[in-house]
Amino acid sequence: MEEKVGQLAQIAGVPYESEQSEITGPVAEMGIPRKLLPIAGSVLGVSGAETVKRIQDNYLKENRLGIPLIFMVDVIHGFKTIFPIPLAIGASWDTDLAEESARIAAKEAAVSGVHVTFSPMVDLVRDPRWGRVMETTGEDKYLNERFAESFVRGYQNNNDYSDPYAIAACVKHFAGYGAPEGGRDYNTVDMSERQLREHYLSGYKAGIDEGAELVMTSFNTVDGIPATANKWLLDDVLRKEWGFDGVIITDWASLGETIPHGVAANEKEAAQKGIDATVDMEMMTFTYSNHLEELVEEGSVDEEQVDQAVLRILKLKNKLGLFENPYRTASVSDEGSIVFSEENRQKALEVAENSMVLLKNEQNTLPLVPNEEKIALIGPFGTDENLLGAWSWRGEPNTASQVLESMRKVVNEDNLLYSKGSNIEEITTEQLEEAVQTAEKADTIVLALGEHWEMSGEAASRTNIKLPDAQLQLIKRLSELKKPIVTVLFNGRPLDLNGIEEYSDAILEAWFPGTEGGEAVTNILFGKANPSGKLPMSFPENVGQVPIYYNRFNTGRPYESAPNDKYVSKYLDSSNYPKYDFGYGLSYSDFELSPVQLSKNEMTPGDEITASVTVTNKGERAGKEVVQLYIRDLVGEVVRPLKELKGFKKIHLEAGESEEVTFTVTEDMLRYYHPDQTFRSDAGEFEVFINNSSHTSHTETIVLTNK
Amino acid sequence: MEEKVGQLAQIAGVPYESEQSEITGPVAEMGIPRKLLPIAGSVLGVSGAETVKRIQDNYLKENRLGIPLIFMVDVIHGFKTIFPIPLAIGASWDTDLAEESARIAAKEAAVSGVHVTFSPMVDLVRDPRWGRVMETTGEDKYLNERFAESFVRGYQNNNDYSDPYAIAACVKHFAGYGAPEGGRDYNTVDMSERQLREHYLSGYKAGIDEGAELVMTSFNTVDGIPATANKWLLDDVLRKEWGFDGVIITDWASLGETIPHGVAANEKEAAQKGIDATVDMEMMTFTYSNHLEELVEEGSVDEEQVDQAVLRILKLKNKLGLFENPYRTASVSDEGSIVFSEENRQKALEVAENSMVLLKNEQNTLPLVPNEEKIALIGPFGTDENLLGAWSWRGEPNTASQVLESMRKVVNEDNLLYSKGSNIEEITTEQLEEAVQTAEKADTIVLALGEHWEMSGEAASRTNIKLPDAQLQLIKRLSELKKPIVTVLFNGRPLDLNGIEEYSDAILEAWFPGTEGGEAVTNILFGKANPSGKLPMSFPENVGQVPIYYNRFNTGRPYESAPNDKYVSKYLDSSNYPKYDFGYGLSYSDFELSPVQLSKNEMTPGDEITASVTVTNKGERAGKEVVQLYIRDLVGEVVRPLKELKGFKKIHLEAGESEEVTFTVTEDMLRYYHPDQTFRSDAGEFEVFINNSSHTSHTETIVLTNK
Repeated sequence: MEEKVGQLAQIAGVPYESEQSEITGPVAEMGIPRKLLPIAGSVLGVSGAETVKRIQDNYLKENRLGIPLIFMVDVIHGFKTIFPIPLAIGASWDTDLAEESARIAAKEAAVSGVHVTFSPMVDLVRDPRWGRVMETTGEDKYLNERFAESFVRGYQNNNDYSDPYAIAACVKHFAGYGAPEGGRDYNTVDMSERQLREHYLSGYKAGIDEGAELVMTSFNTVDGIPATANKWLLDDVLRKEWGFDGVIITDWASLGETIPHGVAANEKEAAQKGIDATVDMEMMTFTYSNHLEELVEEGSVDEEQVDQAVLRILKLKNKLGLFENPYRTASVSDEGSIVFSEENRQKALEVAENSMVLLKNEQNTLPLVPNEEKIALIGPFGTDENLLGAWSWRGEPNTASQVLESMRKVVNEDNLLYSKGSNIEEITTEQLEEAVQTAEKADTIVLALGEHWEMSGEAASRTNIKLPDAQLQLIKRLSELKKPIVTVLFNGRPLDLNGIEEYSDAILEAWFPGTEGGEAVTNILFGKANPSGKLPMSFPENVGQVPIYYNRFNTGRPYESAPNDKYVSKYLDSSNYPKYDFGYGLSYSDFELSPVQLSKNEMTPGDEITASVTVTNKGERAGKEVVQLYIRDLVGEVVRPLKELKGFKKIHLEAGESEEVTFTVTEDMLRYYHPDQTFRSDAGEFEVFINNSSHTSHTETIVLTNK
Repeated sequence: MEEKVGQLAQIAGVPYESEQSEITGPVAEMGIPRKLLPIAGSVLGVSGAETVKRIQDNYLKENRLGIPLIFMVDVIHGFKTIFPIPLAIGASWDTDLAEESARIAAKEAAVSGVHVTFSPMVDLVRDPRWGRVMETTGEDKYLNERFAESFVRGYQNNNDYSDPYAIAACVKHFAGYGAPEGGRDYNTVDMSERQLREHYLSGYKAGIDEGAELVMTSFNTVDGIPATANKWLLDDVLRKEWGFDGVIITDWASLGETIPHGVAANEKEAAQKGIDATVDMEMMTFTYSNHLEELVEEGSVDEEQVDQAVLRILKLKNKLGLFENPYRTASVSDEGSIVFSEENRQKALEVAENSMVLLKNEQNTLPLVPNEEKIALIGPFGTDENLLGAWSWRGEPNTASQVLESMRKVVNEDNLLYSKGSNIEEITTEQLEEAVQTAEKADTIVLALGEHWEMSGEAASRTNIKLPDAQLQLIKRLSELKKPIVTVLFNGRPLDLNGIEEYSDAILEAWFPGTEGGEAVTNILFGKANPSGKLPMSFPENVGQVPIYYNRFNTGRPYESAPNDKYVSKYLDSSNYPKYDFGYGLSYSDFELSPVQLSKNEMTPGDEITASVTVTNKGERAGKEVVQLYIRDLVGEVVRPLKELKGFKKIHLEAGESEEVTFTVTEDMLRYYHPDQTFRSDAGEFEVFINNSSHTSHTETIVLTNK
């Protein structure tokens, strides 16, 4: 029994990494029971072929049954070749690229001894205050579902573990972690069950249906019970309804944290609640190790419950071939050739170019033409700044390309001036003066502004989502020079762009673009790449509008019905709309979309309607456009969103080229959760929108009949 | 059947007020069917004994059955004698005064021909962006419950309709109207059923249990279905669970608004949903009048459903004695003696004095001593401003006392200077200069600042909850004079006081204080009255913290457990706490509370524990203190709040006087909604706090045993 319970424990690598396996210092503080070391099931946070092999060897010498450790780490947006943050990948609307990025991450991780990654994170989020928004693909369930599938496919290579480079994926954080009250990380989540099912659960399910081997529980409560101890959520929904028989692992310490949550009086109660909820593996608290045996002896836990959990973990190890080869793909020589290879970095560049969103481009300020004008690059993100973003554990910020350095490759010295202008959060008079002097010598100002990488990510929530005052002061002062300003933004959340937008002629949202960030920005600024990203999340006018999202409901008094009336749903001091909409993003090309064409107007449940538009590139450059299908259910048993994304296609068109883009509308796309939690459609009218943003009235009406 | 359906209609008074009962102009726009005029059940928005009598006479001449109209209006915080806004009354923590204010409002309304008031509003609210927060009593269910009861008792005089001055109360807005997403009025409401039951429903129930004759449905959705058409909410919960057999009335047009909500395709469906949800009276849409007969004929609606609705309305008319005397208490001569009487205004003064909250008082800046120093009164609220607040329909702003005028009664001309300083939202250089010149001549500056009365109330939501920039500019400039600044705030919502707080030596939150506002402020500023109000709602540091409320949960990673850790639940740029806490408010007295004394530490369900503190007025003035009992349930089946208000007593103590304040703790106070929606307690430990604010660690632990 002790060995079974040991399998359920995951501990940080620290004690294994030290030579003596001593439980001292930080390890003692972590409360890791010494007895666990030779019997623990898994280690987290360790990589590197040599290290992993050494730990596995040492462990197997002591483990009576010879059951190897399984190594899990956070490979979130790349291993050492860092791709743009997930929010940026979401902005690419390119699921193939997402899959390729995950494949590369898996390959680099696999040769470094990693078996499982705690990715993808598919938490739906509507609140930019929440710092961990950078790790999501945004506010929409359909987009989240497609990316969840892509990432899982990429990591697991279509669940083919004969591929040595496949690693197991872990869908997280189950469930609802992206909806903390006040946008404050780890805070209470509360919503109706129908809302949970309709919007929040489907992303996880998509990843699971794609074959994700693990699911990680979330820190938050779901209907008052922490997810980690929530039997309804884990056993009733995840296991029984969805048939998930993989490993459920807690988030870091989250089972023990049911005690401060106040639903377990002590560790023993926490262990009881965890195992009853069918949690298999406990990360970094030790309620199972300390109490499960006792609970089984007392009869409070059935031994079968423990056996099931152990079996799920052993099956995973077996699936990954660890019993045959406990090192799996770990290889020092492969690390040398695969990790951070030129090929991988090229893919990171491609993803970065595809993920940046051109928010504004007055008078075609962009693209710039190299050496046709004098450019002043100004701002803290011009050089020496971390462009990788949070969750880039093995990434090395100083190996990432920087904007200044990349621009120097295409612009000669005379035509490229640089001044830092300000730090991220401070500005000195000298910095400001120098920036003004630099800008005065130039024709165009390129500002590289943003949030420090630690201003988003886990435990990095903010009540203010504007750029720091120092940078607002910088742009304001430079705007007095009346020269064109191109602002490039590096950040991990939707921002309030007041103080930026009004002074910028062009704005490029570069996110945290990763290893090839500087190159990608340069390629876009100078037109070598044509921006094609679309926002995966609304950018509010200000934080007082939060939460704001495109698939909202109409209310009984819609503003649009009577914009001049007092008694409609609105704010006195702000519009109801975001500054930049979900699905929005400009291009250097000029795409024209025809009205929506339907194959017919009426269908029965078994039937289908095709809806199409013709997209024409009227511009002078080749480019990509994301064609988006939205559907509105006009009358439901419950209120239905004003529109919901139901399909998208990213197409490439040469200058002057046209293409017909077709979507098939079927009855299953019209289903929703009814008050009785059944998922079904209602007969009636639906509006079908196709355009290149969620902000569209390009629509035709179809009718679903009962037959 | 037509006459039955007519009884279910409530129409605005406009067509009856005009001589010819013509359906023209605005009335036609309202869509009132002409046939309704002689058969409608009720009229809203009309008062005045003469008008009401005339309308009733004319109506009864045409009504075949001689069933009188019932007259309903919005008497919210007084009829013509305007009391402070409900949020301010909530701040009094004095339910007797609340009851008295409702009695006076009822009396003035009754002699003016009113039978029913659409009050009290008991919507729980945690979001200061929502403009209608001014009409609530704040963020706490216990406080809301007590005020709901008081208002109902006051209006209905303990349900004794032999009292001619009793009018029927209507609890609103059922349910959850105070929780719109983004704080935007009429917007979607979504929460778990347990949250709804635990926090949001109990205020309505308290009013209903006190005998409220009517319930008004709310504009918002509840679990996706507009409350007005929500059968679960109205029939299952309100009628069947709670046994409410009074009249359910819609809010203005809310049944017809199920169409834009998208749950009814047309008026006929709306009518079907309304009657199925047991809505009796439809306000200002006509889906019943236009479609109920047809629905009964078709068999889609049972005639019994209509009969039940009619019967409930007739019973209400009968209860109010309208069949005996269709004018009830309407009397022109009583209007003259009762409405806006000196006696009523004195009570309004008392309520206002009790409702103001002293937020800050450095170095005992307050109270001021008349004529001991030169005072410069500056600010747009010094004179000529509406101090009544929204929902003061029959109140006359120009009859309300103003601050300048009231101060002139106690301070002689030489010692009181005045300058407007700014308008509410604009400031000119001249205004600012004049204000500075005025202030320079004075020893102390009293600033009368605030939000325009239309910046809160219905359809008056804001994303920015700071005072307008003009006023922030004014105080900032005046602060440079380095003279003591006393800021008096007039507003209808919790504010972000950045830009005010740092420049003010003292801050008095005066809310919209009503008819005697200027007098009450003056009495407090000069110490004739001693402030005793306590905040019924948290004042956030900034809007980015919203929602923020005292009875929050602990999370699994509470900030307090490790304030220096990165990975705790917090913001990077703001604290987790409000600027001013729920239950907080200063006095000119200095109250000392002893530690909590318990009669014993352990109890069984049938048992009780008394918890007491000794309160001593160590100051030099008599004053009132609100002693507050909070309880924390340490471990629950679901997460439980950090503390919950469970009792309060407002006591008066002379200088130097002491009093023991005792609360009785019983098992029923420890109950909460479990995941299965049962309301019961768990055995275990509870912390009992008694202090004069929710921000307290004065606590003792008790244990509830199963016996």
